[in-house]
Amino acid sequence: MIIDVHGHYTTAPKALEDWRNKQIAGIKDPSVKPKASDLKISDDELRDSIANNQLKQMKERGSDLTLFSPRASFMAHHIGDFEVSSTWAGICNELCWRVSKLFPDNFIGVAMLPQSPGVDPKTCIPEIEKCINEYGFVGINLNPDPSGGHWTSPPLSDRQWYPIYEKMVELDIPAMIHVSTSCNPAFHTTGAHYLNADTTAFMQCLTSELFKDFPKLRFLIPHGGGAAPYHWGRFRGLAQEMKKPLLKDHLLKNIFFDTCVYHQPGIDLLTKVIPVDNVLFASEMIGAVRGIDPETGFHYDDTKRYIEAAPMLSAADRRKIFEGNARRVFPRLDAALKAKGK
Amino acid sequence: MIIDVHGHYTTAPKALEDWRNKQIAGIKDPSVKPKASDLKISDDELRDSIANNQLKQMKERGSDLTLFSPRASFMAHHIGDFEVSSTWAGICNELCWRVSKLFPDNFIGVAMLPQSPGVDPKTCIPEIEKCINEYGFVGINLNPDPSGGHWTSPPLSDRQWYPIYEKMVELDIPAMIHVSTSCNPAFHTTGAHYLNADTTAFMQCLTSELFKDFPKLRFLIPHGGGAAPYHWGRFRGLAQEMKKPLLKDHLLKNIFFDTCVYHQPGIDLLTKVIPVDNVLFASEMIGAVRGIDPETGFHYDDTKRYIEAAPMLSAADRRKIFEGNARRVFPRLDAALKAKGK
Repeated sequence: MIIDVHGHYTTAPKALEDWRNKQIAGIKDPSVKPKASDLKISDDELRDSIANNQLKQMKERGSDLTLFSPRASFMAHHIGDFEVSSTWAGICNELCWRVSKLFPDNFIGVAMLPQSPGVDPKTCIPEIEKCINEYGFVGINLNPDPSGGHWTSPPLSDRQWYPIYEKMVELDIPAMIHVSTSCNPAFHTTGAHYLNADTTAFMQCLTSELFKDFPKLRFLIPHGGGAAPYHWGRFRGLAQEMKKPLLKDHLLKNIFFDTCVYHQPGIDLLTKVIPVDNVLFASEMIGAVRGIDPETGFHYDDTKRYIEAAPMLSAADRRKIFEGNARRVFPRLDAALKAKGK
Repeated sequence: MIIDVHGHYTTAPKALEDWRNKQIAGIKDPSVKPKASDLKISDDELRDSIANNQLKQMKERGSDLTLFSPRASFMAHHIGDFEVSSTWAGICNELCWRVSKLFPDNFIGVAMLPQSPGVDPKTCIPEIEKCINEYGFVGINLNPDPSGGHWTSPPLSDRQWYPIYEKMVELDIPAMIHVSTSCNPAFHTTGAHYLNADTTAFMQCLTSELFKDFPKLRFLIPHGGGAAPYHWGRFRGLAQEMKKPLLKDHLLKNIFFDTCVYHQPGIDLLTKVIPVDNVLFASEMIGAVRGIDPETGFHYDDTKRYIEAAPMLSAADRRKIFEGNARRVFPRLDAALKAKGK
């Protein structure tokens, strides 16, 4: 089985975006504010949006199951207040849940959170509980910068985040650390802000003792860990200067990287530098980079090909990256699969 | 000849830091504000600070000449106003100039700029002219985020920066794009902010038409280009979605990467992915990562070893990385060397 741990619902029916635009307009003019129940998307519309997009490409590429969360760049936690984020997260998560019910063999949910800048993260807990306990989701996406590129939140090691971590440990779920759109003109969303956030989150963990407080906490850092694997020597050296343990002991029991790196040399480096147990297959398809690479003739984000061609990996390594590690990092995914005899 | 294009005066005598602390105290209490002439550092002190540190390691490692600029993390452009930055830049550049006169075969200067958040970058031009024309410096360090981690400046493609670029083209000098210390608790200075800035600057260039306006402008992106080479497929794909030319045509006539990547797999990726003409040898020694890598027994930042061991490189490639490219990207360096018969 091939499990893609990083998929977003980027192809949702247009009605969703229209509803969101009305919600945003409603922040200034409450008379146009829509109700959640104003959004009408039929099961057929959901089916079409998936069957002709993600599922079609999964079948073409040969992956089986995608961990599916709301569109990352549309989370836009910086817009409005907690009530706005909360309603929006509820709607987006419910759509992913419905997709997972329509295609139970191919999609399982991961929750976006109703974060809002300056609002206590513990306000996200009811949404987490609903998504995990009622929707059968297997993880969450945690935004380390709900300001959208202004980085006004304290580091992930700050105690303000601890209520989320306590809930994660209680529910035995990991978090993918994933920012949303950048509203800072300095940062291009998918070309700079995403990668910067990955590197930033990794370094916030490195300088802290977070995983001493939460030995069972698990973070999945997307986009191949941002700059971390490429600069692994730098990070090993910085940890050494700070008298931290070796990274494998200090961080790699708790931090994992996905394979959203869109060329062969990048995947070769990732799988050479990072222990195989810490690498989880992912493509973020259909996402930021949708084209065909003229150098290969295949989609840039068809990362399965790079894993298959990576010279460092044995067949057993590939099975870990494609399936075993995902089952270990997402125990609720493993339980859901086992319940189906998989 | 082996030229290291990225060295900072991180070992300046303590008197410099003491003076700076008084200057900072003087922002609130003008009665303690020091004059530039209050700083007294003798030639012997300068000699000691270099001969026992950078020069010693250069001799041990086998590099000949370092392009030498003031300590990056101490530029701290966010502190005070333009007058504070201007006085501080003047002092720091003068010290690098004195070092270059004391050790003319081993050091040549690169200028820090008196940037200040919200101040028109053209105010930096007199310092640039002094350093290039009077001190014989061969380049500048340009900070894309003088706010120190709050990223309040417009992107490098914005016309506010154009007066600097016009002067760079006129003087035929490149700029290393290098931030200073982070005062944003989200970003560790050398572990996150530096690498994020490299990626951010690269993406700001990618999304823009800056090099159409300035076909002869040259940027050196340090720390191996941040995350750019590791995610080269992502950047190629993003450029393709934006209908930009191939990166080699769109950016690589103007953007160069240094080799401050502190492990062999990183340098192997860099030299595989980026054309050899765009890679310049550098170590940033004595800098952020000073320790010895227990996996190799050598200093993490002894990057010369990685270049020598990189399997993709021919002897001719290595000569370009160690010397030829630096002479081409820094024409005033080439001229200074030729004037000495080198």
